[in-house]
Amino acid sequence: MNSAPRIVVAAAESSRERWLAALANALPEAHLEWWSRSSGPADFAIVWKPPAELFVQQRGLRAVFNLGAGVDALLALPTLPPDLPIYRLENAGMAEPMARYALTALLRHLHHFDAFERAQAAGDWAPQPPRDPADCTVGVLGLGAIGRVVASALVSAGFRVRGHARSLHHLAGVHCYAGEAGWPPFLQGLDALIAVLPATPDSRDLLNRAALARMAAGALLVNLGRGQHVVDEDLIALLDAGHLGGAVLDVFREEPLPPDHPFWSHPKVLVTPHVAGVTRVAEAAGQVAEQARAVLAGRLARGRVDRARGY
Amino acid sequence: MNSAPRIVVAAAESSRERWLAALANALPEAHLEWWSRSSGPADFAIVWKPPAELFVQQRGLRAVFNLGAGVDALLALPTLPPDLPIYRLENAGMAEPMARYALTALLRHLHHFDAFERAQAAGDWAPQPPRDPADCTVGVLGLGAIGRVVASALVSAGFRVRGHARSLHHLAGVHCYAGEAGWPPFLQGLDALIAVLPATPDSRDLLNRAALARMAAGALLVNLGRGQHVVDEDLIALLDAGHLGGAVLDVFREEPLPPDHPFWSHPKVLVTPHVAGVTRVAEAAGQVAEQARAVLAGRLARGRVDRARGY
Repeated sequence: MNSAPRIVVAAAESSRERWLAALANALPEAHLEWWSRSSGPADFAIVWKPPAELFVQQRGLRAVFNLGAGVDALLALPTLPPDLPIYRLENAGMAEPMARYALTALLRHLHHFDAFERAQAAGDWAPQPPRDPADCTVGVLGLGAIGRVVASALVSAGFRVRGHARSLHHLAGVHCYAGEAGWPPFLQGLDALIAVLPATPDSRDLLNRAALARMAAGALLVNLGRGQHVVDEDLIALLDAGHLGGAVLDVFREEPLPPDHPFWSHPKVLVTPHVAGVTRVAEAAGQVAEQARAVLAGRLARGRVDRARGY
Repeated sequence: MNSAPRIVVAAAESSRERWLAALANALPEAHLEWWSRSSGPADFAIVWKPPAELFVQQRGLRAVFNLGAGVDALLALPTLPPDLPIYRLENAGMAEPMARYALTALLRHLHHFDAFERAQAAGDWAPQPPRDPADCTVGVLGLGAIGRVVASALVSAGFRVRGHARSLHHLAGVHCYAGEAGWPPFLQGLDALIAVLPATPDSRDLLNRAALARMAAGALLVNLGRGQHVVDEDLIALLDAGHLGGAVLDVFREEPLPPDHPFWSHPKVLVTPHVAGVTRVAEAAGQVAEQARAVLAGRLARGRVDRARGY
């Protein structure tokens, strides 16, 4: 291609200027345009939760770049052409904050800040000594670009760490399990589980009563992946039965979490508003630029989505 | 001395068996006895907040060993003979948990878990992205055996770290300030302050309105030292004015914190029941044994308290 590649961009209207500025900076050779119904034909689309109509209006796209790690919203669009190549961010600066989020949730539980918050509300002075990370086994569910960073950060922080993924990974200091056969032994006796899996058909309802019940008494669930992994009723039942000690949840089946959802008022659940893995605009634009240049040059680009797999 | 040294032990009655077992294990050569009014004359006392009467009944003590880092309760006893040498624990396994407590409090604030807890109580979905430790300047007040471990742990976690002590210290990665001249520049613009000072006459009311007001807007105060450092009314006034963003307090002027104290119900204060630096029995017994053997052998023992200084 000799002329400048033409790119349409579609994301939240509120972030329009930030994305256009960052992408113009990262891809000065391209012609960038915020998508509208009157946009001319483009070679690429760079999107985050775009309107379904974009793929009806743009018929000549060569690839789509997703401004986030999760492509579940994109793949759910009925207008998405079945053979259009999709690329996603693997780690645009969000893995390190996600690892720190996981560490925050773990330390808060080990130092009983969650229990002390409840005690404070009741006016109770009820000392209990902190637990040591070295006595705490944490499982990281999902060992992609993000899960690997999370698992390694927890090893550095002194935890005993297990990992689970579809296929067997090798990661320093992490006891890795794979597939269905590895699922029960991975879960067995965990003091905490950090879920960073993407949303796929396989992961729906994965964290149900049978799975969560394998964890140790008093265990903590931290979900940074997608809300559909968790069977909400099962989680609440195990918290209420005292088997699980707490849950820190950043993602939900419906977001924002509906006002009448029982998580809002549950004393052992901390709700955070999908902030653990916020995409950093400059890093994301840089990563998309690299992917687009690779596609233009006919080279293999990172982050190609396998639609059957779902990520 | 040819015969076995005679030692009386006095601490909380509830921990009697644990202390006697650990000390017997660490000092098999000594004759150990839980102190009572009918105890025979002893060479040493090993104590934690002992009854004042102990020093009336025991007239021949050669030294006292304090089962904690803080000697304020011991020094306050009017019966304590003025020339009796006192030794304290410098770090009996409590520095590392204290460093993790400080990290927990900092990460909880940087990831807005404190704000999200308040939002959850109100049913608000109010996203804000996490702050990065690299953009956060933390001051550690007190650079003794505990403060040094805390400061180094925060450097490792990626924070910008300042330290303040009576005299100038040198610590890798820590910008150190000393004495009165260093006090205002140490505080200026801090995003968080971790106090680990012992209670001394100099430290009383040190964290007053003038000092706390020097910190950056939205700053966090974490007090793991002693309650008397903080002017409670000043802290509450600055929290209410919105200048300070939060406080995590483990120590108080009166403990347990009195039921009518405003900290209990303040939405920006987390009260924890003096648990950050819990003495670990086995480590403490080992350290006391080492100190006692040094004194018996006429060698210099670690942890000798300077009464004028207060630690």
